[in-house]
Amino acid sequence: MTKNIPYGQIVGKAIEQMKFPESPRNLYDPIRYILGLSGKRIRPVLVLLGSEVFGKKNNEKALPAALAIEYFHNFSLIHDDIMDKAPLRRGAHTVHQKWNDAIAILSGDALLVKAYQELSKCQPEKIPALLEIFNEVALEVCEGQQQDMDFEEERQVSQEGYISMIRAKTSVLLGGALKMGAIIAEADKKNQQLIYDFGVNLGIAFQLQDDILDVYGSPENFGKQVGGDILSDKKTILRIKLQQLADHQDAALIAQIDQVSDTSSKIEQMVALYSKYGIRELADALKNEYSNNAFERLELIDVPEENKKNLLALGKSLMVRTR
Amino acid sequence: MTKNIPYGQIVGKAIEQMKFPESPRNLYDPIRYILGLSGKRIRPVLVLLGSEVFGKKNNEKALPAALAIEYFHNFSLIHDDIMDKAPLRRGAHTVHQKWNDAIAILSGDALLVKAYQELSKCQPEKIPALLEIFNEVALEVCEGQQQDMDFEEERQVSQEGYISMIRAKTSVLLGGALKMGAIIAEADKKNQQLIYDFGVNLGIAFQLQDDILDVYGSPENFGKQVGGDILSDKKTILRIKLQQLADHQDAALIAQIDQVSDTSSKIEQMVALYSKYGIRELADALKNEYSNNAFERLELIDVPEENKKNLLALGKSLMVRTR
Repeated sequence: MTKNIPYGQIVGKAIEQMKFPESPRNLYDPIRYILGLSGKRIRPVLVLLGSEVFGKKNNEKALPAALAIEYFHNFSLIHDDIMDKAPLRRGAHTVHQKWNDAIAILSGDALLVKAYQELSKCQPEKIPALLEIFNEVALEVCEGQQQDMDFEEERQVSQEGYISMIRAKTSVLLGGALKMGAIIAEADKKNQQLIYDFGVNLGIAFQLQDDILDVYGSPENFGKQVGGDILSDKKTILRIKLQQLADHQDAALIAQIDQVSDTSSKIEQMVALYSKYGIRELADALKNEYSNNAFERLELIDVPEENKKNLLALGKSLMVRTR
Repeated sequence: MTKNIPYGQIVGKAIEQMKFPESPRNLYDPIRYILGLSGKRIRPVLVLLGSEVFGKKNNEKALPAALAIEYFHNFSLIHDDIMDKAPLRRGAHTVHQKWNDAIAILSGDALLVKAYQELSKCQPEKIPALLEIFNEVALEVCEGQQQDMDFEEERQVSQEGYISMIRAKTSVLLGGALKMGAIIAEADKKNQQLIYDFGVNLGIAFQLQDDILDVYGSPENFGKQVGGDILSDKKTILRIKLQQLADHQDAALIAQIDQVSDTSSKIEQMVALYSKYGIRELADALKNEYSNNAFERLELIDVPEENKKNLLALGKSLMVRTR
């Protein structure tokens, strides 16, 4: 978070002060645990910023919706980690690793219900609209996760399919968070749509950037192993674009590289192919398209520029991140 | 369902007509599948009957809430079956068995969200109250399932703990379904509470009866293996009462019986102990206590007796069932 915005701290404090029941421990300890592995709290902050854009700064009335979004996000992390058999999350053991699958399933379920319970603390007259967008987004996130799992089984994924997957799996939640803030601040439908579209486009750009940084980020700044996606043969935007463009011979080469076990040689060979076809530039261009789209939507929102300042700063900071 | 009440058919038809997206297939096929394994639809029928008691018969406005309850119930079945590693449900393969755990987790999640989506179709002014009771019940169901799993690891469970577990895991959903119908039919708070308590007490009585029938039901009518709970050393109300009352010598005998592998001898020995301590009668008395409690609450509801007729009939039919 940029220093001007204490919203991340407000959310963090609210979560700290949350009292979950002591018992059953195996249900609530995992919830306390995952919420305590504090991530960047970007999604709940977006709810508060969505309200700020429409003139309601430091809007306490948006806090329950912000928590609902953060709970939902953490629910999805718990369950995704089971499905992906991931041992680590934010440098710590995942819930299913620390406890077991059954406990992770159930505590995830409970956290999803807690998200709706937070939602129900919003102003009653706002609840139907908030519930509608929240449900829509939640369902799309499930669809996106399923598409992502389906893609693992497929040899080749289309760019269109990939964008549709990351839109559903990660981006609509950003858009939805902003829209919920806008609803609470009583923005009109047109502005609600604009801020939603800003979030979705920014989210897609962010995910594309993530794919690019995995290969071209500097190891010191990126914070994870450079080339990790190549090593796991992950269908990133880079690989998808390469498969789209590769001639017959290079297509065979890709299949060969997939079999290479030596780490540095595997990365080197794939990067050489990326260079040959100008993949980095193509991916950058696509990322910029979505990023520009996002900021154009933000510009179109009909409020004083001052109101957009913090959201704009957060958006820009996400787009030049090196880690 | 008794023949006078076509609510089960109304719900069944509404579910049949539900259009879930075609894609991703691995997300929505399991949902279509579990909803198609039509159970008795008791819970959604209770929503409609809860409305009927308060003068709103055949209330279409209660249908979305009824579907929400049925979706929630099926979500919990999908996830419980993963946790319990159950291969069969209603005589068919469970979702995780037919597909896999990841697909079962995710389609369960999506079905829970769909439940909330149905809820959001209720009259907007009713949504906050409906959401509140729905969330409360949903969270208790998670707590009950966790308690149930915890009990499996414990040597001895108290009667109080057991009742608290079955209340949360299965009974509050019946009470909650009725209360939602009552809310939609604009019952006052006192009556909402009475019909909720009716459902919860009836649910506990029903579960106790299930424990009793597992041992004392006639094999032709009970529809599952008699003595199955004894064979799996399950901590039913019968076993809990026996452990409470058994003297030192018989306590050691119980531990011995747990080790017996011969099916009929194991059941025979445990039933002999039940007889020695009059366990069946004690369990029957407890069941009747909850059942009487339930019907007393129903009597206290201040509406024409005619309104209660169908709910009363359903309640009675559940209490004399032999299968």
